[in-house]
Amino acid sequence: MISLIEYIGITAGMLTTLSFLPQVIKIWRTRDVSSISLLMYSFFCVGVFLWLVYGVAMSSFSLIAANAITLFLAGCVLFLKIIIKDK
Amino acid sequence: MISLIEYIGITAGMLTTLSFLPQVIKIWRTRDVSSISLLMYSFFCVGVFLWLVYGVAMSSFSLIAANAITLFLAGCVLFLKIIIKDK
Repeated sequence: MISLIEYIGITAGMLTTLSFLPQVIKIWRTRDVSSISLLMYSFFCVGVFLWLVYGVAMSSFSLIAANAITLFLAGCVLFLKIIIKDK
Repeated sequence: MISLIEYIGITAGMLTTLSFLPQVIKIWRTRDVSSISLLMYSFFCVGVFLWLVYGVAMSSFSLIAANAITLFLAGCVLFLKIIIKDK
């Protein structure tokens, strides 16, 4: 039986992870990255990668799954920021 | 003595938390929020708030500290997105 507080944790993880999806879709559609901070997504992607390493070291499935998805989505934003900026 | 893996976790937490600061500064300076996704920051702030609730319930100082700072910074982005959009 999962406790209420674990449901809150799971919901929190899903929201913070999947929140990057609308940002990726918005950039993909508009091709506008003018107000996206390159520094933010550079730091953020390195940080999430380190969370992933931490999750692997701790053998935590939740940490690995959440951070793998977040790294992919935030990585898409970073990639689009770089390629669109260079146009 | 803190282990290497805990140092990785602490560095990960600092990077993902403080990464929002350059985004806040960029918006503050340029007043441009055109490519920022309102949906992303809405979901993200609710998610980080739930992480904060989770941290309080788990009496985890790290979770409380990291998510309080992240909520403040991501909340600034959300606030700027809303007020600048309404201009």
